[in-house]
Amino acid sequence: MIKVNEVGWIEKEKPACGPKDAIVRPLAVSPCTSDVHTVWEGAIGERTNLILGHEAVGQVVEVGSLVKDFKPGDTVIIPAITPDWEAVESQMGFSQHSGGMLCGWKFSNVKDGVFAEYFHVNEADGNMAILPKNVPIEEGVMLSDMVPTGLHGADNAEVAYGETVVVIGIGPVGLMAVAGSNMRGAGRIFAVGSREICQDAARKYGATDVINYKEGDIVKQIQEANSKKPVDKVIIAGGNLDAFEQALKLVRPGGIISNVNYLGSGDYIKISRLDWGVGMGHIRIVGGLMPGGRKNMEYLSNLLKYRKLDVSILLTHRMKGFENIEKGLYLMKDKPRNLIKPVVTV
Amino acid sequence: MIKVNEVGWIEKEKPACGPKDAIVRPLAVSPCTSDVHTVWEGAIGERTNLILGHEAVGQVVEVGSLVKDFKPGDTVIIPAITPDWEAVESQMGFSQHSGGMLCGWKFSNVKDGVFAEYFHVNEADGNMAILPKNVPIEEGVMLSDMVPTGLHGADNAEVAYGETVVVIGIGPVGLMAVAGSNMRGAGRIFAVGSREICQDAARKYGATDVINYKEGDIVKQIQEANSKKPVDKVIIAGGNLDAFEQALKLVRPGGIISNVNYLGSGDYIKISRLDWGVGMGHIRIVGGLMPGGRKNMEYLSNLLKYRKLDVSILLTHRMKGFENIEKGLYLMKDKPRNLIKPVVTV
Amino acid sequence: MIKVNEVGWIEKEKPACGPKDAIVRPLAVSPCTSDVHTVWEGAIGERTNLILGHEAVGQVVEVGSLVKDFKPGDTVIIPAITPDWEAVESQMGFSQHSGGMLCGWKFSNVKDGVFAEYFHVNEADGNMAILPKNVPIEEGVMLSDMVPTGLHGADNAEVAYGETVVVIGIGPVGLMAVAGSNMRGAGRIFAVGSREICQDAARKYGATDVINYKEGDIVKQIQEANSKKPVDKVIIAGGNLDAFEQALKLVRPGGIISNVNYLGSGDYIKISRLDWGVGMGHIRIVGGLMPGGRKNMEYLSNLLKYRKLDVSILLTHRMKGFENIEKGLYLMKDKPRNLIKPVVTV
Amino acid sequence: MIKVNEVGWIEKEKPACGPKDAIVRPLAVSPCTSDVHTVWEGAIGERTNLILGHEAVGQVVEVGSLVKDFKPGDTVIIPAITPDWEAVESQMGFSQHSGGMLCGWKFSNVKDGVFAEYFHVNEADGNMAILPKNVPIEEGVMLSDMVPTGLHGADNAEVAYGETVVVIGIGPVGLMAVAGSNMRGAGRIFAVGSREICQDAARKYGATDVINYKEGDIVKQIQEANSKKPVDKVIIAGGNLDAFEQALKLVRPGGIISNVNYLGSGDYIKISRLDWGVGMGHIRIVGGLMPGGRKNMEYLSNLLKYRKLDVSILLTHRMKGFENIEKGLYLMKDKPRNLIKPVVTV
Repeated sequence: MIKVNEVGWIEKEKPACGPKDAIVRPLAVSPCTSDVHTVWEGAIGERTNLILGHEAVGQVVEVGSLVKDFKPGDTVIIPAITPDWEAVESQMGFSQHSGGMLCGWKFSNVKDGVFAEYFHVNEADGNMAILPKNVPIEEGVMLSDMVPTGLHGADNAEVAYGETVVVIGIGPVGLMAVAGSNMRGAGRIFAVGSREICQDAARKYGATDVINYKEGDIVKQIQEANSKKPVDKVIIAGGNLDAFEQALKLVRPGGIISNVNYLGSGDYIKISRLDWGVGMGHIRIVGGLMPGGRKNMEYLSNLLKYRKLDVSILLTHRMKGFENIEKGLYLMKDKPRNLIKPVVTV
Repeated sequence: MIKVNEVGWIEKEKPACGPKDAIVRPLAVSPCTSDVHTVWEGAIGERTNLILGHEAVGQVVEVGSLVKDFKPGDTVIIPAITPDWEAVESQMGFSQHSGGMLCGWKFSNVKDGVFAEYFHVNEADGNMAILPKNVPIEEGVMLSDMVPTGLHGADNAEVAYGETVVVIGIGPVGLMAVAGSNMRGAGRIFAVGSREICQDAARKYGATDVINYKEGDIVKQIQEANSKKPVDKVIIAGGNLDAFEQALKLVRPGGIISNVNYLGSGDYIKISRLDWGVGMGHIRIVGGLMPGGRKNMEYLSNLLKYRKLDVSILLTHRMKGFENIEKGLYLMKDKPRNLIKPVVTV
Repeated sequence: MIKVNEVGWIEKEKPACGPKDAIVRPLAVSPCTSDVHTVWEGAIGERTNLILGHEAVGQVVEVGSLVKDFKPGDTVIIPAITPDWEAVESQMGFSQHSGGMLCGWKFSNVKDGVFAEYFHVNEADGNMAILPKNVPIEEGVMLSDMVPTGLHGADNAEVAYGETVVVIGIGPVGLMAVAGSNMRGAGRIFAVGSREICQDAARKYGATDVINYKEGDIVKQIQEANSKKPVDKVIIAGGNLDAFEQALKLVRPGGIISNVNYLGSGDYIKISRLDWGVGMGHIRIVGGLMPGGRKNMEYLSNLLKYRKLDVSILLTHRMKGFENIEKGLYLMKDKPRNLIKPVVTV
Repeated sequence: MIKVNEVGWIEKEKPACGPKDAIVRPLAVSPCTSDVHTVWEGAIGERTNLILGHEAVGQVVEVGSLVKDFKPGDTVIIPAITPDWEAVESQMGFSQHSGGMLCGWKFSNVKDGVFAEYFHVNEADGNMAILPKNVPIEEGVMLSDMVPTGLHGADNAEVAYGETVVVIGIGPVGLMAVAGSNMRGAGRIFAVGSREICQDAARKYGATDVINYKEGDIVKQIQEANSKKPVDKVIIAGGNLDAFEQALKLVRPGGIISNVNYLGSGDYIKISRLDWGVGMGHIRIVGGLMPGGRKNMEYLSNLLKYRKLDVSILLTHRMKGFENIEKGLYLMKDKPRNLIKPVVTV
């Protein structure tokens, strides 16, 4: 990223490695819709000469003197979120916000990202995980952001056995929210999206019903399919601020609306006073950035290692060579009909 | 209540007692701001010839054939919320919404209230509790609504040891939210309100700082007093929809905004997209009606029985005689400077 | 059951139906190991002329005057546990213990069970659920006890994404604990059992590793397979009191040992002081009876309705005719090699 | 500590300061019963030439190059538990066990303690907190271990409004468990102990009933006082393994037994099969080391700063001068009648 609306390659010094850090060479990376937001919408403000990218599997090249558990040559997963683990916020269980709101998100935000020959990982012992041997590097990249973000949506929704869940938006994150709901024991899962390739994937990940917002109001469609009964939980993984208004019309008293969508524009979340039970309805509204760090990478990689989750369905575009990263970025920008997620091996 | 904007006394048949129900004669009652909303704002829609009141201690007059634990002559607390305990919603832990949103609230809503010579209690074994002997009936009345509503606010905010809590609104419910936060181990408690009698009571209930919204923007006042640090939790027990916008500016990532205020007007809760961390800030927004039922009454009455909570501070106006109920209602409507809460013994 | 150690058929009056109750005719029933314990081990003390059985799908024959949601002719699931919903314990979230420890368990314990031409269901609106149309009655019977008990084990273990779980005992309940762990997103699942038919079923339900206790100490086998790392959770669904000692040697600090096994003999649970971290290790030890009631039956039946859980694997012996119930009971007593669970349609 | 059973002063090099560490000079320290266990019972195994002590307020003398938030001259609280915050266990919420069971406990266990001219603090930014200005250093020392350990007992017991709680053992930790239960809104609190000074303190901290185990079986005494009703929670802060058997006879189904007592001897925790509801009673048994770290110190210090907790009641013996540390240690060993806790300012 040269500046807002302009991308290109730049030359930079190889980053320096502090005593607790690591320098990593990417083996496989994936461009993300957030990168698109950052460049073409200026979502996080002006950035100049910032290296993009926050999804990578890589090879350790150098480690600091205090790093105990990793060594050069290790193949590692690097999460999009790499918190400062000593921070008070991390000690509270909100490492995503270590040092301040969203400050656990460093790559391609407050420091250079992973679309580079070498990149820097802070607190390596706390923020990297060994990629299990039986997991291909292209699939491992999905653990950086897509898997943890989607599953975080289902976790925050506290999906439980037999519940009825609506997932609004079935791009790669939404699909992982479908899979996450399914892995938490949901009964009926409504997946809301229009592209056929995503609808098919949603069914594979456990969706029992697919709702196309182009075919009419989703609230009406779901209520009708569900015999007018409210649903237990709604996960928002796409759409705009109006999605909250729709969600609130669907969910039962005591239900949860769980957002994992980066809300890029608009002033206020739309929470209708009446639909929210005049403040008395026990409908919880939650939303949060995925948790990063080593523990999460290790546990989520178990899902791939033991074949509980098949992320290969997401990987519609596999490319080889550093030079294809830019192509991948434009794919995410243009979203062709046959795309879910591209991955580039280096 | 004759109709919206008109109150008066009416004659009605003594209610019939079903096999699981009880008929109770009030010993002490208290008018509530909700009654004012119901009559003069038509908050719950038109009602005609509805008996008002949902806060009472009474004497059991009759019990149904299936009632096991109560008998005529017992002095009992009757909660404002009297759920249907078999309902699926109750089994889910949301008895307030048994049968549908807010449907656990019956008195002076979907059936006659307690400002009568006799009133009817559904599912008596599940919805009444014996008043402890050492608790005066006037104080016991505070267990019907004020204590459980205020404490529910602190519970939903998950207040923990040493946390900094803001309570917006310090009428009787807000004061109980202050007391509830204090009883959950809060460190610093900001109480927001303007009337001196309420401010004094807030300090007695554990507030460390009192903020008067008439003396400037409460966000600025609190941020300044708190060295610009965000607070952990905000409990909303008064004000209007703007209170959510203020709360969001105060609370930390991972914090909770807990509403127990009946939101009487306006279209949308004001949740600023940016202050909510573009949907990524883990700021939970919750709100709910107090839990009713026997268990809650028994446990909360322990707080009075063992002198952990002194509700006498709330009782600024004590009156005697059925005829004074109307006077009490007007007191709640007009809110004189020296009023916190009136109680009428019959 | 005539008395301890003696079974046979007896004649009894058709049970009376109270105002909130229902009388049901069984359509399909299943004998349970608990019935075996009750008869041949006298586990719950002497009982004479008690009708056995607590797993049934049936047809409603009669409902009381206060029953609103069911009518004669409805095909319903009846859970093994049918709580009193008004009880204080139910209001606390422990309906299993409504009225006292284990008192939510009524069938074939404190009242006649379901192996009869007609049986009585207390609080019908709160304790029955309509069987979904696409669920066969034989499969529906598994919802009475096997599914909720096994899944309760995984719930109490708070199994989370990617965790490593050990399930000790893979009879039908243990198999459902395997399925429950899998449905909560476990990564690696060790299933401990010796019979081949159960081992095969365990793999189908998500077990990644099968451990046979006849082939050596299970602690050593699991530690070796798991590279000496502790596991996250252990669910005990079989074995005796020694299972706790084994579990404690396997689980990590912060882990949970969750028991759903009816512990029939012995004096003390074996919790080694040292393995428990001299009381400082944050290893939680929990155990509890399945939750019954309508809500659970409705939500769990969604798992069958939407084909998230295939209980047909459990049904190794399907029989027809009332007279085969006794045969089924002896099957559960003798546990032949090819048995998981029998079901008898009437 | 020279070796087991022998204490004395030794000369050691001033500890070296790593890049994330701090060197601190003690201002006030307090000997702990754990120190007594370590020396005279060899509870943690043989140790030679180990400096004792893990409760201190001190002055920062030196900080490492990566330390951001502290500087020489700062007056800080140092918790007994100083975890490695990057560790996977810390990321799971069990920082006490960072690197393995109990490995967050370093002082006077795996490294030299605080009874020295200088001592070393690992991960200073994550493990120290500024002592609030209005908190005397002697009182601040109680935040190192007594306050967090006692309050952890109440937290793990999930004490809620109006509950009845038993605290077994009312030394300084048990007294803080009483205070913690009270601060979480307990109704009735039974405090079990025999020394009068502790009984008086227990009443000041919120105990409603004091039970002397020298005056008869505590189970009988409590049951009688509580009208044979079970209690909600039991916190074990003293006694031996038999305390679990007593606790289990007292607690209700769904209740919690929460241990914060270091269990020094015996083979098995005594959990009676029958009292535990044959494994079906939902009585949770939990126990764990206090959480350390900066966040806890900051939040708990708020309780002193805002005068929500008065720890001065604990400080029965205040001494001045380094040489009195040994005297303090012997006081904890001999427990005279008028002792709760000694503190030595340096």
